[in-house]
Amino acid sequence: MQRALSAHRMAGGRSNFPDWYQAVVREADMAETSPVRGSMIIKPWGYGVWEQIQKELDRRIKETGHDNCYFPLFIPLSFIAKEAQHVEGFAKEMAVVTHHRLKMIDGKLQPDPEAKLEEPLIVRPTSETIIGDAFSRWIRSHRDLPLLINQWANVVRWEMRTRLFLRTAEFLWQEGHTAHADEGDAMAETLRMLEVYRDFAETTLAMPVIAGEKSENERFPGADNTYSIEAMMQDGKALQAGTSHYLGTHFAQAQNIRFQNEAGEHVFCHTTSWGVSTRLIGGVILTHGDDDGLRLPPAIAPKQIVIVPMLRNKPEDSDVLGYCEALAHALARETAFNERIRVHVDTKDIKSADKRWNWVRRGAPLIAEIGPRDVANGQVSFMRRDQLRDGDKVRSHAMPRDQFVADAAQLLTEIQVRLFSEAKTRLDSNIRSDIGTFEELAEYFGAAGEEDEAAEFKGWVKASWARPAGAALEAVEQRLKQLKLSIRNAPLGQSTSNLGKCIFTGEKAVQEILIARAY
Amino acid sequence: MQRALSAHRMAGGRSNFPDWYQAVVREADMAETSPVRGSMIIKPWGYGVWEQIQKELDRRIKETGHDNCYFPLFIPLSFIAKEAQHVEGFAKEMAVVTHHRLKMIDGKLQPDPEAKLEEPLIVRPTSETIIGDAFSRWIRSHRDLPLLINQWANVVRWEMRTRLFLRTAEFLWQEGHTAHADEGDAMAETLRMLEVYRDFAETTLAMPVIAGEKSENERFPGADNTYSIEAMMQDGKALQAGTSHYLGTHFAQAQNIRFQNEAGEHVFCHTTSWGVSTRLIGGVILTHGDDDGLRLPPAIAPKQIVIVPMLRNKPEDSDVLGYCEALAHALARETAFNERIRVHVDTKDIKSADKRWNWVRRGAPLIAEIGPRDVANGQVSFMRRDQLRDGDKVRSHAMPRDQFVADAAQLLTEIQVRLFSEAKTRLDSNIRSDIGTFEELAEYFGAAGEEDEAAEFKGWVKASWARPAGAALEAVEQRLKQLKLSIRNAPLGQSTSNLGKCIFTGEKAVQEILIARAY
Repeated sequence: MQRALSAHRMAGGRSNFPDWYQAVVREADMAETSPVRGSMIIKPWGYGVWEQIQKELDRRIKETGHDNCYFPLFIPLSFIAKEAQHVEGFAKEMAVVTHHRLKMIDGKLQPDPEAKLEEPLIVRPTSETIIGDAFSRWIRSHRDLPLLINQWANVVRWEMRTRLFLRTAEFLWQEGHTAHADEGDAMAETLRMLEVYRDFAETTLAMPVIAGEKSENERFPGADNTYSIEAMMQDGKALQAGTSHYLGTHFAQAQNIRFQNEAGEHVFCHTTSWGVSTRLIGGVILTHGDDDGLRLPPAIAPKQIVIVPMLRNKPEDSDVLGYCEALAHALARETAFNERIRVHVDTKDIKSADKRWNWVRRGAPLIAEIGPRDVANGQVSFMRRDQLRDGDKVRSHAMPRDQFVADAAQLLTEIQVRLFSEAKTRLDSNIRSDIGTFEELAEYFGAAGEEDEAAEFKGWVKASWARPAGAALEAVEQRLKQLKLSIRNAPLGQSTSNLGKCIFTGEKAVQEILIARAY
Repeated sequence: MQRALSAHRMAGGRSNFPDWYQAVVREADMAETSPVRGSMIIKPWGYGVWEQIQKELDRRIKETGHDNCYFPLFIPLSFIAKEAQHVEGFAKEMAVVTHHRLKMIDGKLQPDPEAKLEEPLIVRPTSETIIGDAFSRWIRSHRDLPLLINQWANVVRWEMRTRLFLRTAEFLWQEGHTAHADEGDAMAETLRMLEVYRDFAETTLAMPVIAGEKSENERFPGADNTYSIEAMMQDGKALQAGTSHYLGTHFAQAQNIRFQNEAGEHVFCHTTSWGVSTRLIGGVILTHGDDDGLRLPPAIAPKQIVIVPMLRNKPEDSDVLGYCEALAHALARETAFNERIRVHVDTKDIKSADKRWNWVRRGAPLIAEIGPRDVANGQVSFMRRDQLRDGDKVRSHAMPRDQFVADAAQLLTEIQVRLFSEAKTRLDSNIRSDIGTFEELAEYFGAAGEEDEAAEFKGWVKASWARPAGAALEAVEQRLKQLKLSIRNAPLGQSTSNLGKCIFTGEKAVQEILIARAY
């Protein structure tokens, strides 16, 4: 038995982290690659997680005063050309629509040369330009401000190296776009939404993050300030899990987004944008997965409690099924995380043991297995996915039925908290702050080859720096790049009283930054 | 006063129906045209309606056993080419992606010739081919069936003549795709989802429809049977509001979607697909709008009750505001249509009268106007959007505050029912069934010119026919087309006991069909 169980574990466990990640995505039935280069198919269990993420984040976005809209998928090339003129570092890898009809020519279906578009259309990589154009028409007076808009949409960026959820050519996201009367209001919005992301990541995804400001070279093209939340994955790498940008009057000037202030002058708006994407699901997997597959925080599990009836094609099967349905019904009346508990009875026509392992791999937080003995004793036998094993052995609990129903919400909350604190401990105990020079940094991380994805766990380094700018910053980032490192962000709310010398230049430091390898 | 109020009405009312429709979409702030040909911008109020539609329809789709997924936006040209080979009437107007990078050449940003795709990609017009490809990998055994999948997505069809919501190049929809072991199960699914659409349209959108089968020339390319729900708009035209297709083994054969049955044979699946889109919002406007703007069925109104505080920049303003907030709080604890009542206090810094008319035009079901006198009397003054006027005069009601809170859900239900029965009466009393020959049909509808959009209200005709096929059907449809008419569907559940002669051929009829002008 012991051996049979172990055989279900992810081949190789987390020692080969990239292979492990792929195996979890596949075995948890989250997503798969598609015949379209770099695009993924998000399967029901993966999409179910996205629906939970959307529901809770949408609630928070609306609660902070934003309205949802929908803007066109296509952006005229002229809009992009205008942006390219005034934005340095503008990425040009994007999908270009050039024709609007197919035609059979010489027995082959191809773009009809007579249906060539006068102006090519770009599949949106992000919507600042098309939304800015609308803002320039919608905003007239200071009474129209702040204008607070959000959109849930698909976007496309022609990435060369893709990985399911983490980096795909097409992905799903939300993008907030807002316009304000002045810098103060726009900066407050930028930081408010960063805080929404931070709290959402920690509370809902059970994924601890550090919120901070990106260095000037890592800003969104055209932004005055870019902020991020960064999470530590189980291989020690950082994942940028969300960004919020203060765009100054940059986009407003390019697109003539102006308002008449109370003095009657027509002045430029200050704008912001902020977004998170299906990448968050990759973050959840890399944070909470284990050698048995995925572990989902109950707050985003599409099914929080799965009940597996142990059926044997015997007469007592109908009693077992009836007991399971009644249990599900009772559980579905209970509330956890301000919603009715999501419970599922798995009546699929496959072996019970296979069902158990399907749900273990998918990371359902509580898995109940009900056999004739449970029915006879009026009890529930169940596994907690966060504490699946005792050594190599699977740990099964039993509880009187009514107590299980009464305690279910509490159990789910415990699992949520435990997943968070496990990840929080990992983050907190793996940020070294005793490295003072670039040489020590290089020695600590060692040289990492291009393919050295499964490198030893190193975590992050917190270091002081003098915040060099321009060419000096560029030189610093090049040196880091050779070690496959980057500056993640300068954490917000840091004390500047005990700063040492700049890790790069030895000058007096002004700020602390986080340095890490990253996804 | 009277005159001032009337001035807010839609210019020309419904006498020029296309202009009236445009005016309502604009004045209700639902959507606007975008700089991208044929694509719309869905504004917050319009998108809010879509969110309500999504929420309720998604609930019904899940309740009938379907899981949501997400498939790629892009479809390889080879997939489309395969479909084009075996599907007649295949539409070739679609957006074609040919390049993946822009480049500055001679000072002009353009598609980089070196980044031309080896195989062009099509922006999905619908996802049968890409989902069928996945089904061919996912389905192995009869245990995998039925496979019930749905997707909420944007799709693109290069339409020549577009109209906001009703026909746009890009639109939002849901598309269900299912695979079954046999025809019986697939046909049951096709009709089950048609019934979901019918009940949803009538119960939630308050839009009465007739469910029936499309004629063979009007089937989805590749379908064995296509069913639709058809709604009557206020100009008497029909709107096809949703379709459900039984695809036989047609797509399964083209894409090798097979399963091993219990006898061990590998046989083709029977598949279905079904969808509704943002077009439904156009249907709601054309069904319920009046000369003052939109009237929204409470079940889909983003705000069901709007409270307008009558502020005068006087000290008592804060009492009025406090009273409004407390009222909103009390209303938000009440339940209507199985959800908490959606209530909004409009504190925007504009004149109260302008606010009132903003919400009248947007169609908020209940609009409360609260002034100092209401506060003093502990009452609520309000308008019902479904019964706004008494002649030309606006009808205002007053009720003690606690009674208003207690009755709010009942009032909303009444409005929902009244909007439905108004539209139902219109539908039921405008289907003529006394027209027996094509000549009478031509005389009744008269010749309609290309631009004769604002023609006299004619409604629909129910007629018997012999169900001609092939060239005979083609001839019939050409004759109808000259009158700008079409066969909408053959209603389900009809009696065949009292059929007369075929309206086209004089032969013995086998079925009744609906004939109408259509969107």
